[in-house]
Amino acid sequence: MHILVIGAAGMIGRKFTESLINAPLDGAVALSRLTLADVIAPTSPAGFTGSCETMTCDLTQHGAAERLLSGRPDIIYHLAAIVSGEAEADFDKGYSVNLDGTRTLFEAIRHINSREGWKPRVVFASSNAVFGGDFPDIIPDDYILTPQTSYGTQKAICELLLADYRRRGFLDGIGLRLPTICVRPGKPNRAASGFFSGIIREPLVGQEAILPVPDTTRHWMTSPRSAVQFLRHAATLDLSLLGERPNLSMPALSVTVGDQIAALRRIAGDKAVALIKRAPDEAVARIVAGWARGFDPQRALAFGFTTEQSFDEIVEAHIEDELGGHIA
Amino acid sequence: MHILVIGAAGMIGRKFTESLINAPLDGAVALSRLTLADVIAPTSPAGFTGSCETMTCDLTQHGAAERLLSGRPDIIYHLAAIVSGEAEADFDKGYSVNLDGTRTLFEAIRHINSREGWKPRVVFASSNAVFGGDFPDIIPDDYILTPQTSYGTQKAICELLLADYRRRGFLDGIGLRLPTICVRPGKPNRAASGFFSGIIREPLVGQEAILPVPDTTRHWMTSPRSAVQFLRHAATLDLSLLGERPNLSMPALSVTVGDQIAALRRIAGDKAVALIKRAPDEAVARIVAGWARGFDPQRALAFGFTTEQSFDEIVEAHIEDELGGHIA
Repeated sequence: MHILVIGAAGMIGRKFTESLINAPLDGAVALSRLTLADVIAPTSPAGFTGSCETMTCDLTQHGAAERLLSGRPDIIYHLAAIVSGEAEADFDKGYSVNLDGTRTLFEAIRHINSREGWKPRVVFASSNAVFGGDFPDIIPDDYILTPQTSYGTQKAICELLLADYRRRGFLDGIGLRLPTICVRPGKPNRAASGFFSGIIREPLVGQEAILPVPDTTRHWMTSPRSAVQFLRHAATLDLSLLGERPNLSMPALSVTVGDQIAALRRIAGDKAVALIKRAPDEAVARIVAGWARGFDPQRALAFGFTTEQSFDEIVEAHIEDELGGHIA
Repeated sequence: MHILVIGAAGMIGRKFTESLINAPLDGAVALSRLTLADVIAPTSPAGFTGSCETMTCDLTQHGAAERLLSGRPDIIYHLAAIVSGEAEADFDKGYSVNLDGTRTLFEAIRHINSREGWKPRVVFASSNAVFGGDFPDIIPDDYILTPQTSYGTQKAICELLLADYRRRGFLDGIGLRLPTICVRPGKPNRAASGFFSGIIREPLVGQEAILPVPDTTRHWMTSPRSAVQFLRHAATLDLSLLGERPNLSMPALSVTVGDQIAALRRIAGDKAVALIKRAPDEAVARIVAGWARGFDPQRALAFGFTTEQSFDEIVEAHIEDELGGHIA
């Protein structure tokens, strides 16, 4: 099997690629070929016995989509995006990358499909930012998408395109509304949600972290491990089960910042918690206030997507995966 | 006040333009200037004492949007679209006109807004075809949009764009999800919904009409009169009332084809009903089966949008407006 990962240099892209190499996908033909693409050069993963090609590629450039698809992959993971904070700051760039880039990819698939009958599986990384405005604490699967960020708007539009291209038979596909990923390893990025990870990640290595919102802020989070597992599950799930609605809210945990801090205290003590510095930021608080606090993701659960049971598990997963099991 | 109507040569565009000339808008500054645009030349309306310009204009052509906006209208009605049947038959044309044409218009407004601060009111004609798949008999205002046609997909995407451009302050705006218009006067068009009008319109003038779906088919319909009234109301409605959700399902009647035929029988007798010829058409039935059967449009009603109380009223309005009050 040949898998293409677009956005392979990103945090989830890297973890997902590693996981593909380290553990075979359940019920799938063995992975013999990988194509890894991103706007910055992805690293060729160690330990892969099949053929691996890395490509530096910007979907908004003419011919880039055709080049990406030249190996006719069986599964295309489209994880590439400008993050929410940047898409809000740069209107043109957000629409260009997040909407036009995705549409260009789908169009290239459609044209090859009509010439050759090739019909890949597309796994599209959407986001819970497609929800916004005045929604209930627990959002059901049939709730309206009224995003309150340009990023969420772009993701919601791509969900609609994915569904229409799938309905027309140009591709098969599934959209996964990824929850906020926490604890995100490495450096902060420009996502407005970055602090949800920062307040755990930084104190665990003895560094200060900024908290721009109140402790009562509730949000929907899952671990990098779970996000990788969603992507893996989407590789082999029978997509006919999705019927007319291929875009799914993924399971996660509905926790407050206060819940996060309590878990940090249980695992790393008061010393870690003391490193969290409160610095209210109206701009961040306004964006986050428009985001979902919780979901009832019945469809995703019925189709076998799973997540953690407590935020403690999420912190412990981070310590195991990123800190070699040790805390400062 | 200066109003631009894009799609002015269409049925609703013509009726709306006539109504603007024949009756002043409640609570609005007098209409002094009209710009009427369409891909075919709109007719300059009789009896208008202000300045009226007609333009032949295709929004998908380079520079067309800037030309349309050169008079900096106060209100822009965007009614232009490829209809559902044609958008399904011609994938490229549907996306080009219904999505790219609308986005080009919004982009042109944004660029003028950023240079000059000009911020017009945009009234966008969406459609109940944005709903699809497995929905309830009565669709609430917060129900998910999962269209099952490319036309519905394009309208849903434009709703998202309208909301984001409005949120960013580039324009003010409202999207009206127009119900199926019945009785549509004149010749049948390529809309898959055409027969809902045909089975009333043709028998009332002694002609046969084809019915491609079962009598039990339920659908959401309103008259051309009500559609014009929605557009008029949107000219002066306080748009701040819409909050974060500027796209509204309009009120209408939820009736079956059998209800339509019963009204026709009450008003025009068995002779008229006998002119309806049943000719089941799987392709039409499949498209229509994906459309909404009824709504609970609480928000639109709260904001003052109104419709007929019975299908008899709709038939009688058609006889008054199109047949001079007489039936064959």
